Amino acid sequence: MGNTFGHLFRVTTFGESHGGGVGVTVDGCPPQLEISAEEIQVELDRRRPGQSKITTPRKESDTCEILSGVFQGKTLGTPISILVRNKDTRPQDYSEMAQKYRPSHADATYDAKYGIRNWQGGGRSSARETIGRVAAGAIAKKILRQVANIEVIGYVKRIKDLEGVVDSNSITLEQVESNIVRCPDPECAKRMIELIEKTGRDGNSLGGIVECVARNVPKGLGEPVFDKLEADIAKGVMSLPASKGFEIGSGFAGTLLTGIEHNDEFYIDESGNIRTVTNRSGGIQGGISNGENIILRVAFKPTATIRKEQKTVTKEGEETLLAAKGRHDPCVLPRAVPMVEAMVALVLCDHLLRHYGQCKIL
Amino acid sequence: MGNTFGHLFRVTTFGESHGGGVGVTVDGCPPQLEISAEEIQVELDRRRPGQSKITTPRKESDTCEILSGVFQGKTLGTPISILVRNKDTRPQDYSEMAQKYRPSHADATYDAKYGIRNWQGGGRSSARETIGRVAAGAIAKKILRQVANIEVIGYVKRIKDLEGVVDSNSITLEQVESNIVRCPDPECAKRMIELIEKTGRDGNSLGGIVECVARNVPKGLGEPVFDKLEADIAKGVMSLPASKGFEIGSGFAGTLLTGIEHNDEFYIDESGNIRTVTNRSGGIQGGISNGENIILRVAFKPTATIRKEQKTVTKEGEETLLAAKGRHDPCVLPRAVPMVEAMVALVLCDHLLRHYGQCKIL
Amino acid sequence: MGNTFGHLFRVTTFGESHGGGVGVTVDGCPPQLEISAEEIQVELDRRRPGQSKITTPRKESDTCEILSGVFQGKTLGTPISILVRNKDTRPQDYSEMAQKYRPSHADATYDAKYGIRNWQGGGRSSARETIGRVAAGAIAKKILRQVANIEVIGYVKRIKDLEGVVDSNSITLEQVESNIVRCPDPECAKRMIELIEKTGRDGNSLGGIVECVARNVPKGLGEPVFDKLEADIAKGVMSLPASKGFEIGSGFAGTLLTGIEHNDEFYIDESGNIRTVTNRSGGIQGGISNGENIILRVAFKPTATIRKEQKTVTKEGEETLLAAKGRHDPCVLPRAVPMVEAMVALVLCDHLLRHYGQCKIL
Amino acid sequence: MGNTFGHLFRVTTFGESHGGGVGVTVDGCPPQLEISAEEIQVELDRRRPGQSKITTPRKESDTCEILSGVFQGKTLGTPISILVRNKDTRPQDYSEMAQKYRPSHADATYDAKYGIRNWQGGGRSSARETIGRVAAGAIAKKILRQVANIEVIGYVKRIKDLEGVVDSNSITLEQVESNIVRCPDPECAKRMIELIEKTGRDGNSLGGIVECVARNVPKGLGEPVFDKLEADIAKGVMSLPASKGFEIGSGFAGTLLTGIEHNDEFYIDESGNIRTVTNRSGGIQGGISNGENIILRVAFKPTATIRKEQKTVTKEGEETLLAAKGRHDPCVLPRAVPMVEAMVALVLCDHLLRHYGQCKIL
Repeated sequence: MGNTFGHLFRVTTFGESHGGGVGVTVDGCPPQLEISAEEIQVELDRRRPGQSKITTPRKESDTCEILSGVFQGKTLGTPISILVRNKDTRPQDYSEMAQKYRPSHADATYDAKYGIRNWQGGGRSSARETIGRVAAGAIAKKILRQVANIEVIGYVKRIKDLEGVVDSNSITLEQVESNIVRCPDPECAKRMIELIEKTGRDGNSLGGIVECVARNVPKGLGEPVFDKLEADIAKGVMSLPASKGFEIGSGFAGTLLTGIEHNDEFYIDESGNIRTVTNRSGGIQGGISNGENIILRVAFKPTATIRKEQKTVTKEGEETLLAAKGRHDPCVLPRAVPMVEAMVALVLCDHLLRHYGQCKIL
Repeated sequence: MGNTFGHLFRVTTFGESHGGGVGVTVDGCPPQLEISAEEIQVELDRRRPGQSKITTPRKESDTCEILSGVFQGKTLGTPISILVRNKDTRPQDYSEMAQKYRPSHADATYDAKYGIRNWQGGGRSSARETIGRVAAGAIAKKILRQVANIEVIGYVKRIKDLEGVVDSNSITLEQVESNIVRCPDPECAKRMIELIEKTGRDGNSLGGIVECVARNVPKGLGEPVFDKLEADIAKGVMSLPASKGFEIGSGFAGTLLTGIEHNDEFYIDESGNIRTVTNRSGGIQGGISNGENIILRVAFKPTATIRKEQKTVTKEGEETLLAAKGRHDPCVLPRAVPMVEAMVALVLCDHLLRHYGQCKIL
Repeated sequence: MGNTFGHLFRVTTFGESHGGGVGVTVDGCPPQLEISAEEIQVELDRRRPGQSKITTPRKESDTCEILSGVFQGKTLGTPISILVRNKDTRPQDYSEMAQKYRPSHADATYDAKYGIRNWQGGGRSSARETIGRVAAGAIAKKILRQVANIEVIGYVKRIKDLEGVVDSNSITLEQVESNIVRCPDPECAKRMIELIEKTGRDGNSLGGIVECVARNVPKGLGEPVFDKLEADIAKGVMSLPASKGFEIGSGFAGTLLTGIEHNDEFYIDESGNIRTVTNRSGGIQGGISNGENIILRVAFKPTATIRKEQKTVTKEGEETLLAAKGRHDPCVLPRAVPMVEAMVALVLCDHLLRHYGQCKIL
Repeated sequence: MGNTFGHLFRVTTFGESHGGGVGVTVDGCPPQLEISAEEIQVELDRRRPGQSKITTPRKESDTCEILSGVFQGKTLGTPISILVRNKDTRPQDYSEMAQKYRPSHADATYDAKYGIRNWQGGGRSSARETIGRVAAGAIAKKILRQVANIEVIGYVKRIKDLEGVVDSNSITLEQVESNIVRCPDPECAKRMIELIEKTGRDGNSLGGIVECVARNVPKGLGEPVFDKLEADIAKGVMSLPASKGFEIGSGFAGTLLTGIEHNDEFYIDESGNIRTVTNRSGGIQGGISNGENIILRVAFKPTATIRKEQKTVTKEGEETLLAAKGRHDPCVLPRAVPMVEAMVALVLCDHLLRHYGQCKIL
């Protein structure tokens, strides 16, 4: 239980890293949306392993098939089921992990909870599970664009202590995609790539921060008091593998300011709209979008699976040593960008439907 | 919509700051739990305004009444409804706010969303709404204690840049409650109190960080992939008024480490249990509790309502100035401690019931 | 768990027959709806015990108080909590029932499930619980009327074998309320009243059928494949105390026809609308409203609590005899009419919001 | 929206009659259950078209593939996704239906709701959608058997006015499966088969009643007041295509009895258990199972799609005539038996998990 996300735009993912495949069923997509497997594939390719020299070398085309819910190129309003077959499965790479728990990975807790585990490649706890999220996110993004020209753009803000300078108000997808680390500060990106390559060669791994902005979000989305917009976004991104922290607007740094320094004063813009001078609120006040850009950050820890030797224990409770063999992803951040975007898009789409209704929105 | 939290232990809060009252209905509480209004009152008193010289001076006893679900001192397994009447209501203090939007408050977004707003004291967006959460949290805490001796303890970790030194492994409720700012580092607490008093006199406000630890949590709680334990906790605390950030375990700081530095190595303890040497994971791996202490932090921005003059706009779209009159809370942190504890307890209790079933748990 | 109903228009009821009170929290009500306690009271008075000589003589005014969610006569879009205090509580009438299980009542199953039970007047399983439903239904009905002039009218169709002749297309609330048994066939109503009075004097009870029609329902409500409109209505009415059967349109009788006899042929009416010549579908095809009248029936068994002596057992497992003392309701049907209407209205309102969105509907 | 069923044992179906395929994702299945595609196939074969001379002649093997959630023959506790490819798709048979609405079918309402429809073979409103339900039901049945030896057995009770005599207390699956109409009264079955064949030759169709019994259900399942066991079952079976009525225990006929005639008196059996002498309650009292057999009936209307000519209208709003071409199912009842069983099993399994918890049940 726990594999469904959303209230009106409901996403249910399935699948393990090894096995028949992974995928998603999207329930609640408005009818008459034009969508194709090709459009979804674009986002999956951003998440795909082996896309560049700095990601996991697992060879997967991650080709998606739409099983249902689309007819003559348009959504039917019925569930859209999307399947990606697993291809490059190498159980032999993981045979040691059938016995030894990887430190800071989910191996031990899955065994503790379920008493059984697909130890091949991480099973359900593999980042491969996020394929379903990203595929659903591609649909959500298209709805957001069509309904209100809403854009959701993520990028790598920081790798370890290398932090890029990015203007969230103007950044474009093209700029993000202009380099393989997805940090749209070219100088910083270069240093990040070097650091990831070096760390990968050492068998070690890196973490960092993904920042994400949603622009053109209409006022009024979010459902206090529990389904506040930032609360649902927080849940969404904190359910991504390896995420350890979330902040919106001024976030943790905002706690160092006083009220008079932190408050976003109001003004009336030339069109007569109520706007805020600053945006420390991050586009949300009282759990409801205020029309300013939604801006948030997610902290990802360094990848748990590394090739360096570590102390661990076996399933049977004996202490031992482990150095992961085979494929290893030195830094998940570049691939985490589409994951974060997907979760933000799913939440926004869900709240858009709550506010405007499913069938009347397009 | 959005006023219900939890899946098996479901909490629905209601009520505005001014009006008949505020409260909560708890559905899914296991039967035969001994509970009294007095026990719930203890937690409400920790959240109560006017409890000390450094909180809002609103005079409320916040006396709770159990309307249903308890018979002869024990829960029935039926919904427990708890009501707290509003007493000290002063609509006149807020008459200006009927017209003027407080910067960084929810006034403007509520109007944008609903087209109507109870402007008396913040209405539904008032921190007064958390009374229902804290009352439900008191019940959740008791269940946690009885089922597995689980303790949930929060405390003020930082106010602005004043940070206390606290050992989350050993800290006790008594230590937290030993001073009015709820920072169990006596030296730091003293400075915090001075800063809050000074800031309050200036008509300004402060933010900071609440840290919370849950001890004795059994292995196996949490439901991947979306209802991971940290994801549900993140949603819970990010739905609290004024929260701007969340982190678990190593959090944002953990992104500065490499994998080999960050991973929690395993060992076998004297009882034969699988344990981790360090706890950068914060008690959760892959979304499932691993038996170590769950440790998390929540960032609260400085209170939006201040007495200093700020630029703002009226409902009708005219620019103006506002300096809040009447009562003003210079720092919500001491009162946020029971709120954070409540949300963490609600999530843990919900997942305990998912794992063990409602009626068989006690 | 299980005390919340609805997906976007969510109703959570609470309360036992004896105790502080009973009530409901309605979450998801659109903002800016004019509503008053008086309007809700009108429906509660139709459900109230002691309203006529043929119902239970329990003396309750069932006066409701709106605790939240309404400001200056209009809904805020926040939870509306409504409380009815218990007044005429006579635990002494029920002291025997603390030990002896009433046949076909919920006494034994509540003990089996929860291991504890409020034995005073049925506790949570009392029909008194439906106060919350009827209060919420009053709000739902008003929304339905305002949004689309939808009318929901129920009436007693049959008591035992006395069946009224009623035209569901034209029946009015005034006609239903013109007699105390709520059967708008005056001749039949007279005989029903006589039968109920006689049966009541005998200490026995009666069942029957409530029929309910919803008119002016727009096309397109209902969410296949599980949340079909008739499925949600079925759940709603089958959750009412004492209901044993549900049918929509032709129902059970329709199984005696062949396809060519049963199908509703289409035609184009003078306004160019697609209509059906007959309405054996009962206003719903494929789980979605088709614009024709929704017509359904609910079977209610004879009230379980009777004054005649019956064989039963005690809590401790000894065989014994029981003849209920004190107040006894010879026939719940007249009071079941507003309960059925409420459940139908709740479902329609929920689906209206799903289709059109919460905040844009009024 | 509306394609997920269940609270802890959650089933999400997808797929249209024509298109990539149909299937289901089951979330919340307890871990370590042995399950194979072959076991699921057994139930699918009972639902399969073309299984006998009296069902639709569509040629489908309906072979299922388990995509996820099972590892080395055992469930993982993760989502189980099951896919059945569509094979025998003949859009040409349905080309007329792209324009003409079949009377009493969902064609017109889907167009009204979604503004788009997969007109090939009924699309989402096809009975083909129930493949996912039956596959999930196969898993639920196995859990029920393993946890508490619960049996769920359905059979055809009546076709038109031909009613079989069946003892629900002793009936076996073997007896049900002993003839193609699934009515375990051999004499009646013979007449039913003859009637269906004759009606099919005439291009007409038949309805009837499926009865279903659940035996060995433990006391205590069901969650008042809305998620009562019979309410959830009612929703489940009323969401099946073509169902028009539901009753539990004495049902509609029970309304003809008085209280003293209807009540189920209690006694203590030889093992000291509290039992009822009669079972007019149908195994549920106050929404909670009482340990007696759960017995229920579902009315299915005659199949809407017939080969006889009927008056109808086109999508564009012109009156016309329609006689369905190609394949036509004269009576869905034999195939509805596994569908009803599946829905009952899903509800029981869901409530079993609510009561006992997901991971501790096997």
